[in-house]
Amino acid sequence: MNFKGRDIISIRDFSKEEILFILERASFFDKNKTSDHLKEKVMATLFFEPSTRTRLSFETSMAQLGGKVLSFDDVNSSSIVKGESLHDTVKMVEGYCDLIVVRHPKEGAARYVAEVASVPVINAGDGSNQHPSQTFTDLYTLQKELGDISKTKIGFVGDLKYGRTVHSLSLALAKFGLPIVFISPKSLRMPQDLIEELQSFNIKIIEEESIEKVANDINILYVTRIQKERFSDLLEYERLKGVYQIDLDLTSSFPHLKIMHPLPRVGEISPEVDGFEGAIYFRQAHNGVPVRKALISMVLGK
Amino acid sequence: MNFKGRDIISIRDFSKEEILFILERASFFDKNKTSDHLKEKVMATLFFEPSTRTRLSFETSMAQLGGKVLSFDDVNSSSIVKGESLHDTVKMVEGYCDLIVVRHPKEGAARYVAEVASVPVINAGDGSNQHPSQTFTDLYTLQKELGDISKTKIGFVGDLKYGRTVHSLSLALAKFGLPIVFISPKSLRMPQDLIEELQSFNIKIIEEESIEKVANDINILYVTRIQKERFSDLLEYERLKGVYQIDLDLTSSFPHLKIMHPLPRVGEISPEVDGFEGAIYFRQAHNGVPVRKALISMVLGK
Amino acid sequence: MNFKGRDIISIRDFSKEEILFILERASFFDKNKTSDHLKEKVMATLFFEPSTRTRLSFETSMAQLGGKVLSFDDVNSSSIVKGESLHDTVKMVEGYCDLIVVRHPKEGAARYVAEVASVPVINAGDGSNQHPSQTFTDLYTLQKELGDISKTKIGFVGDLKYGRTVHSLSLALAKFGLPIVFISPKSLRMPQDLIEELQSFNIKIIEEESIEKVANDINILYVTRIQKERFSDLLEYERLKGVYQIDLDLTSSFPHLKIMHPLPRVGEISPEVDGFEGAIYFRQAHNGVPVRKALISMVLGK
Repeated sequence: MNFKGRDIISIRDFSKEEILFILERASFFDKNKTSDHLKEKVMATLFFEPSTRTRLSFETSMAQLGGKVLSFDDVNSSSIVKGESLHDTVKMVEGYCDLIVVRHPKEGAARYVAEVASVPVINAGDGSNQHPSQTFTDLYTLQKELGDISKTKIGFVGDLKYGRTVHSLSLALAKFGLPIVFISPKSLRMPQDLIEELQSFNIKIIEEESIEKVANDINILYVTRIQKERFSDLLEYERLKGVYQIDLDLTSSFPHLKIMHPLPRVGEISPEVDGFEGAIYFRQAHNGVPVRKALISMVLGK
Repeated sequence: MNFKGRDIISIRDFSKEEILFILERASFFDKNKTSDHLKEKVMATLFFEPSTRTRLSFETSMAQLGGKVLSFDDVNSSSIVKGESLHDTVKMVEGYCDLIVVRHPKEGAARYVAEVASVPVINAGDGSNQHPSQTFTDLYTLQKELGDISKTKIGFVGDLKYGRTVHSLSLALAKFGLPIVFISPKSLRMPQDLIEELQSFNIKIIEEESIEKVANDINILYVTRIQKERFSDLLEYERLKGVYQIDLDLTSSFPHLKIMHPLPRVGEISPEVDGFEGAIYFRQAHNGVPVRKALISMVLGK
Repeated sequence: MNFKGRDIISIRDFSKEEILFILERASFFDKNKTSDHLKEKVMATLFFEPSTRTRLSFETSMAQLGGKVLSFDDVNSSSIVKGESLHDTVKMVEGYCDLIVVRHPKEGAARYVAEVASVPVINAGDGSNQHPSQTFTDLYTLQKELGDISKTKIGFVGDLKYGRTVHSLSLALAKFGLPIVFISPKSLRMPQDLIEELQSFNIKIIEEESIEKVANDINILYVTRIQKERFSDLLEYERLKGVYQIDLDLTSSFPHLKIMHPLPRVGEISPEVDGFEGAIYFRQAHNGVPVRKALISMVLGK
């Protein structure tokens, strides 16, 4: 399989076989931390909104592969202030690098950048749309923690209506024919069109409001944040916040669960849970490095 | 010719022979994209005003030469906020690097930095004064696109009164004895003292208000932005904006023209022109990399 | 002596022997400017408040050792804005690097980061508390300029009440049994608890208000800034500002003095003094590089 020159914009663009191939490469870089094989390459990070975690993860990946990084992550920087179009910014930057990593607040911006650029483009998040390197990181975490991705019995909990990571990861898991449980208040359920898209893969889908009712049917609990401002009824918010709070009560009731979270968390998971052996969210974050090394080196043809 | 330790502050400091030597080195780096020969060197970018394009261009040049970059480009950073003088900032930074690239909003600041610093200094723009690496990039583009710089028959169009790039490039071309056409509204003509300085080289100078009238006498049309705020009469602005708009009408009337622009553009050149074979402004921008590689490696004696 | 994996949080944690060992390593890096021996290592700079001088000094040190740097120095960056705890930020960053350099406005923050992180941590300043790499730089400067640290007869002048560098350096010198003179207005004297801590080392301590009265008893005058806002009586401020101004009058009266300053200065030392042969503050600043190289390479076990 050859990914040289390919753009990485959406998990939708990848087949099951391609995903497995990428995870295999990530596993290789997990075992081989540093190398020099991209030492003549320059990666530009073109961030139109801040994202420390993602930017650092890409930068350290490139650094450990021996490559160089150009950071363009100030939305107030001169060219933008002067009114330059996204098109022209990309035409400029492509002359200075071998690879562009782009983050943009608008949906579809990454696809547009990929069309304009003559160098490969990796989408590091375009609005509420896609963030494929996060999805590959989640998939790699599942494979590494469970031994085999096909053992995944995942339950997503929290704000499933707006959660980009949930949408992307569930689509990827559907390609593997895996069952999915969605746990949320009625007002924050998965969008109906996504549910229908998932159903087209003939997978088992359960929608539920309580973690406890389904906890024994899953082995992974993927937690996302519930934002107060999504609720018109604040009493409803206060009630649900408590219901979905991950604490030692929950983990001691269901010690077989592994807890994932895309981070940053703000309070959904109590700090006391960090010591629980199923708390794998920091390992999940660290997996972003070998996964991004795999993506970077593959699109650069190395 | 040995440039080791030399500062690069103004195009005025360079003879015709020195310019040709630098262009020859740029041509070398155009063919040899990456190397390791500056791998023990550190370049500090000391930017007192933002300039993404210039900064990225210098940084990628240094990276592809194997060197390291220290970025000091936050005007709100602590030392400045604490009231440290430019003198002291430079005395500090020179201890941390082998080369300083400075950009400053005040005219003459780069020359001052060069006087203070014990390491070589490259001016990356000091107010409306000089920006020599841009001028060398323009000269290199002319040589590369026309085969020989002596074939240049350039017409500058737009705001010639305040345009730093126009002033510097026209001075350089005058050293080669080349003819120059200046196209602008009366209110934005080249400053009279500059015209007189150019005349001292005994070159042919034409000042004109219409592109069409001189288009057949030139082979390069160098476009700059006309800023609304320069006009007291807005009707005059609206009229001229249309007259100087570069679009397919113009390029199909004069298909022999090559269009240059220092970028960023805001609307002076219609996006539809990008596909025109004479649209060389993005190639011009990319030429900044080999040119800056030449300048950096020469002042570092490599 | 093996410092591999050790955190560098406070000068209090180091014995006299350890300090001398570190200065010896700094001397080695002073003579061997560049190397490749950290080329597979990544250092993250985690700056929760800006400090250009310190950040640049660490970055250039790492660069000249062949290593890579990840900069996380925007307090407005996304994770912080999203409300992520310091704990979680550190757990994320440790996955991306081999070493964390942290600066934080709160006292004790660096110690906390070191407790959380699985990689070594160097404190680059935590509020008014400690800044050990500055103290090692000052000690190295004394050793280099005087030939032997035991020849130090230092006088600190200025704001001794709030001056972090004064507190740390005086503690280190006390470990060597060296005498110290403190010169300040009554309202800005050394804190009484620190004086008592110093006295426990049985060293000679003098507190004085006039530089002239003690200038012949010292060979180093360590100057710090007096801030106007510390004074309730502005007449008192104006009087003292003049008394403590270091100018050619003072240096010609006491030509044996060497003048140090942690920089940036704002007016405590007249620019005319820069040419005085005892003005060693810029050399002091530059010494930060070999000292930080020593610290970085030691905690990384190289």
